[in-house]
Amino acid sequence: MRKIDLRSDTVTKPTDAMIRAMADAEVGDDVYREDPTVNRLEELAAEKLGKEAALFVTSGTQGNQVAVLTHCVNGDEVIVEADSHIFYYEGGAMSALAGVQTRTLNGERGALRAEDVEKAIRSTTNIHFPRTKLICLENTHNRAGGAVVSPAQMKSVYDVGQKHGIPVHLDGARLFNAAAALGVDVRELTRFTDSVQVCLSKGLSAPVGSILAGDRDFIEAARWWRKKLGGGLRQVGYLAAPGILALTEMTERLAEDHARAKLLADGFRELSLAVEPVETNIVLVKTDGIQLTAVDFLRSLAEHGVYAVDFDEYVTRFTTHRHITDDDVRHVLEVVETLISGVSAPR
Amino acid sequence: MRKIDLRSDTVTKPTDAMIRAMADAEVGDDVYREDPTVNRLEELAAEKLGKEAALFVTSGTQGNQVAVLTHCVNGDEVIVEADSHIFYYEGGAMSALAGVQTRTLNGERGALRAEDVEKAIRSTTNIHFPRTKLICLENTHNRAGGAVVSPAQMKSVYDVGQKHGIPVHLDGARLFNAAAALGVDVRELTRFTDSVQVCLSKGLSAPVGSILAGDRDFIEAARWWRKKLGGGLRQVGYLAAPGILALTEMTERLAEDHARAKLLADGFRELSLAVEPVETNIVLVKTDGIQLTAVDFLRSLAEHGVYAVDFDEYVTRFTTHRHITDDDVRHVLEVVETLISGVSAPR
Amino acid sequence: MRKIDLRSDTVTKPTDAMIRAMADAEVGDDVYREDPTVNRLEELAAEKLGKEAALFVTSGTQGNQVAVLTHCVNGDEVIVEADSHIFYYEGGAMSALAGVQTRTLNGERGALRAEDVEKAIRSTTNIHFPRTKLICLENTHNRAGGAVVSPAQMKSVYDVGQKHGIPVHLDGARLFNAAAALGVDVRELTRFTDSVQVCLSKGLSAPVGSILAGDRDFIEAARWWRKKLGGGLRQVGYLAAPGILALTEMTERLAEDHARAKLLADGFRELSLAVEPVETNIVLVKTDGIQLTAVDFLRSLAEHGVYAVDFDEYVTRFTTHRHITDDDVRHVLEVVETLISGVSAPR
Amino acid sequence: MRKIDLRSDTVTKPTDAMIRAMADAEVGDDVYREDPTVNRLEELAAEKLGKEAALFVTSGTQGNQVAVLTHCVNGDEVIVEADSHIFYYEGGAMSALAGVQTRTLNGERGALRAEDVEKAIRSTTNIHFPRTKLICLENTHNRAGGAVVSPAQMKSVYDVGQKHGIPVHLDGARLFNAAAALGVDVRELTRFTDSVQVCLSKGLSAPVGSILAGDRDFIEAARWWRKKLGGGLRQVGYLAAPGILALTEMTERLAEDHARAKLLADGFRELSLAVEPVETNIVLVKTDGIQLTAVDFLRSLAEHGVYAVDFDEYVTRFTTHRHITDDDVRHVLEVVETLISGVSAPR
Repeated sequence: MRKIDLRSDTVTKPTDAMIRAMADAEVGDDVYREDPTVNRLEELAAEKLGKEAALFVTSGTQGNQVAVLTHCVNGDEVIVEADSHIFYYEGGAMSALAGVQTRTLNGERGALRAEDVEKAIRSTTNIHFPRTKLICLENTHNRAGGAVVSPAQMKSVYDVGQKHGIPVHLDGARLFNAAAALGVDVRELTRFTDSVQVCLSKGLSAPVGSILAGDRDFIEAARWWRKKLGGGLRQVGYLAAPGILALTEMTERLAEDHARAKLLADGFRELSLAVEPVETNIVLVKTDGIQLTAVDFLRSLAEHGVYAVDFDEYVTRFTTHRHITDDDVRHVLEVVETLISGVSAPR
Repeated sequence: MRKIDLRSDTVTKPTDAMIRAMADAEVGDDVYREDPTVNRLEELAAEKLGKEAALFVTSGTQGNQVAVLTHCVNGDEVIVEADSHIFYYEGGAMSALAGVQTRTLNGERGALRAEDVEKAIRSTTNIHFPRTKLICLENTHNRAGGAVVSPAQMKSVYDVGQKHGIPVHLDGARLFNAAAALGVDVRELTRFTDSVQVCLSKGLSAPVGSILAGDRDFIEAARWWRKKLGGGLRQVGYLAAPGILALTEMTERLAEDHARAKLLADGFRELSLAVEPVETNIVLVKTDGIQLTAVDFLRSLAEHGVYAVDFDEYVTRFTTHRHITDDDVRHVLEVVETLISGVSAPR
Repeated sequence: MRKIDLRSDTVTKPTDAMIRAMADAEVGDDVYREDPTVNRLEELAAEKLGKEAALFVTSGTQGNQVAVLTHCVNGDEVIVEADSHIFYYEGGAMSALAGVQTRTLNGERGALRAEDVEKAIRSTTNIHFPRTKLICLENTHNRAGGAVVSPAQMKSVYDVGQKHGIPVHLDGARLFNAAAALGVDVRELTRFTDSVQVCLSKGLSAPVGSILAGDRDFIEAARWWRKKLGGGLRQVGYLAAPGILALTEMTERLAEDHARAKLLADGFRELSLAVEPVETNIVLVKTDGIQLTAVDFLRSLAEHGVYAVDFDEYVTRFTTHRHITDDDVRHVLEVVETLISGVSAPR
Repeated sequence: MRKIDLRSDTVTKPTDAMIRAMADAEVGDDVYREDPTVNRLEELAAEKLGKEAALFVTSGTQGNQVAVLTHCVNGDEVIVEADSHIFYYEGGAMSALAGVQTRTLNGERGALRAEDVEKAIRSTTNIHFPRTKLICLENTHNRAGGAVVSPAQMKSVYDVGQKHGIPVHLDGARLFNAAAALGVDVRELTRFTDSVQVCLSKGLSAPVGSILAGDRDFIEAARWWRKKLGGGLRQVGYLAAPGILALTEMTERLAEDHARAKLLADGFRELSLAVEPVETNIVLVKTDGIQLTAVDFLRSLAEHGVYAVDFDEYVTRFTTHRHITDDDVRHVLEVVETLISGVSAPR
């Protein structure tokens, strides 16, 4: 049976060029900072992201957690969007590892409103309060369905942070998707952040790894926390080499994934399914209207070789990526049409 | 100038009987569990709260934090109301000390909805999630304006907890106010909890201290965490003695505070001020309608010897207690009338 | 049966004057910093200890832990003596609450050697190391048998700290005993510290409480951590009042406890028991020579109404205090003589 | 200038076969546990280490820290050797991340004595104590100069653990070196552990990665903590593939490194340098006798293209590995002879 895997863009395998780059990589011991390929990737990433310095980390979660550990100390409070990855999907690590309390705000399609952020910043004179030490944004926002946070929205939150002396960290696991959707350079987004994490895997197809970028002092301090988390590696140029290609060769192609996501969404809508607005490579389908739980929907899809993930009791996420073709999209729509007709038909 | 202090019921001083009880207290070294007065208070409190065992702690915050530390381990998640004291006013201690992530839900006048709680409980099979290990309630709910959570509401949340094997902790800093307002024994509320903290100070007028109650094993484990926080004390019977009177002599009188709070609220409303519904001894006045910030309101009040606290940019809290008389209430209303007329008068 | 309790000086009950002071205390809400008696105690303590500011805390453990939380952040390392109270007897709280690693050094009769401290300070350029952020001393040193650390020893460690920019915290739970034994003002000891904790209970006989002292900024920051631990109390002047007497009336009498400890030790030695050098109010008896475990020794003593504590498999601690008379000492020696003759007699 | 790098066996680069295996690896998304190469490595490692299950981690530090986080909760205590890597070189992570206190014992050439361990286990009835929850061993022991802990020594500590219900974790970063030196299967060592971490890099030459092994439930729980540390990776089969060769092809060759280390040590001794006993691939040279600090020694060596690391003020570590030949050893000895003659010559 044909298998179409729309669970996540994390399932993408590296390109042949990436595998060749890996095999040919010049490496060294990166704990001694002697891996030339890692050094090259970090310089390149810093430049692309418009920051002074960058650090290779093994995952988006590691990049985010190292950022929190570096910006904050135990007893601080961090403002996060209630559905953000750093709060929702990272195992409570911010509190477990960094000892910080999460102040969650409900965003608008993932975007924090500046006025909400300003209101949530704690007075520094009330002994009952923790100190607000960090504001976290996510762009594109996963649980909001790959929603794009605009430069203007980011600026408004960043300005609040600047006013109160509170840095902004951006979980940009899919930041290049946001830039592609907006048609801007990622620096138009990262300029409104103090630190940023971007994934080299996902749509950019590197096998493993993310980048944490910020100013030089921040990145130096981040190295120490990365070491404590076990992220100080040896000949990791083998992962950095495909990472360089991810940043140089793969960002342009994200628009294709977005086009296919729109195609998929349009198809779902034609089948009368409720679909969240699609801005990038994520499609959220809501099946409460037809009383079909995500778990049941997924089970039926899997029987036809189509894979996605449940996001909520009645919400299913489909993610397009490099291995998904137009024909795959058509096939998925056919499968769903069959399933839906069965489900929604009167008995 | 006459001074009327409505900032909090924590300002109450002990009764003469309490001071005599203190001076006459039979004491011992409570770290060795040999203080007879502490032992008597803990037995009495356990019985009053319908639990197997109880522990004297030095504050509501200490009782709440010891409860979290005892119920949870680092890396767990705790469901709390977004405006609850344990989250809002305890310095981020849950995350700082216990390493747990707070999952905040917006309650309805402070009461968590059972369906929201059930939805917020994390699946235990998704490796991206922390484990949900505790549900926290607060009754009466301070920031909701002394709102009472009914036994039915508490039961509905407790049932969800039971179903999923997740304990419920109640921050009952003002639990006897809730019982008084409902006209029920506190056990009608504590039966829907696994652990509960109640304050002996506040409306009950003991100088210092709170009680943490629960089953025997829980309280034994709580003793160890209390020790780590520096709450294992020596001849603390001097504080337990007035605590015994707080539980035996003072709970009946809370209704008086409630009556005066209603009197105050009615007076405010007659002055066309927006007032939140009053159920116990707390009155929240909203002054956004007259474009008067709480800080400005408080400054003017203080000039007339009246003290309250700001709760939000345009919300001021007045709290009645044992030292506030009917005449004090009338005087406050006169002061406010003068102030308001000045503020709201056209120029 | 006559009961003689030499378990600890923590069992001392307050003097009549202390109880009167408690009953007469003028109090207020100390969270608002309006308790005049607490304020008076804190000013007095700061002055006595030669520091800018002081803070009332509920126990020595709380004072020590607040000091660590205030001096350090998560991920730091603290140098402590291997047998010090802060490491040995505080439930691992430094690591549990503050997230700091303890670097233990073996002292000489409780005193850290300056050269060992200097060697243990971590290089700040090696990414494998935590940062050394605090050096902890204890004086008198409990597990070293109430041993006194001299001003010269304290200075040598303090100088190392100064040289490397690392503050020194002193656990001075029995600091007035050290000063009495040395015949110096406590300021001759506290001048070689950045922060210091002294107990008002123990030999000074206050029922509950300790003082944390240091410079003004440190104490302001310490207030925030005390609040998170639940040590922000209300009308706690009732405990501060006897605390004032502890500092003003009780320090002179400690020499009596020391004299009785020496009397007891001399008596033990006459009975051929191995006794550690006695400098203050603690006597450590070693019974490995007569193959009597501390637990067995204590059991026999208790049968005769004499109470002490086990410190190690073959080490028993006796502590003199205000309730122990010369006659008590004689009685204890008689009891021990009887026991020992039974134990060591040939069969 | 010829460069000879004896700083660490971590500088080893993968073999050509490893690079080919990397390029040819069949991969998948390991967060979904669908990377066949990772799965194969984990099964192989579990079998080689005699455990039910195994987990790929990105470094020895990550393996050790995940083990601590999985065995313990905040507030526990862990017994470690005072010079062990997990305590000395992991940035205080045990306390920073897991909130556990480290109880350090001085081993004999790195080996903890069973009687010391037993004595250090805390009574569970004394409220002043943390609970002892883990015993950590290291074999070979790095700072003891690559010292081997014998099966008998390991068994004696493990038996103490078993008796008290306390698991033993082994930091076996260089465990295959120990097995090679002893001429036994690693399972003769791992049988006296509950969990074990071994490095695939170092002498085994894989570019990145370690294995954590233990029973099935332990490894399942460890997966959750690895995720929180950011060690849940995607197509990490590219690192697992060389890891498989590390375990199958490279363990036999470690004896060569040991032979060269002995050659180097013998040469040093002939030059009258003080050298610690050499059991594996690490040589510690002590230069206090000739009043030459390690830092100065290293500076001179580097001027001749020879690299090692300082271990203490007067201790320098040389580590042999796959890239070091007999001729390299001879060259190093020549360089040192020249240096030493200059240093020790009378002026």
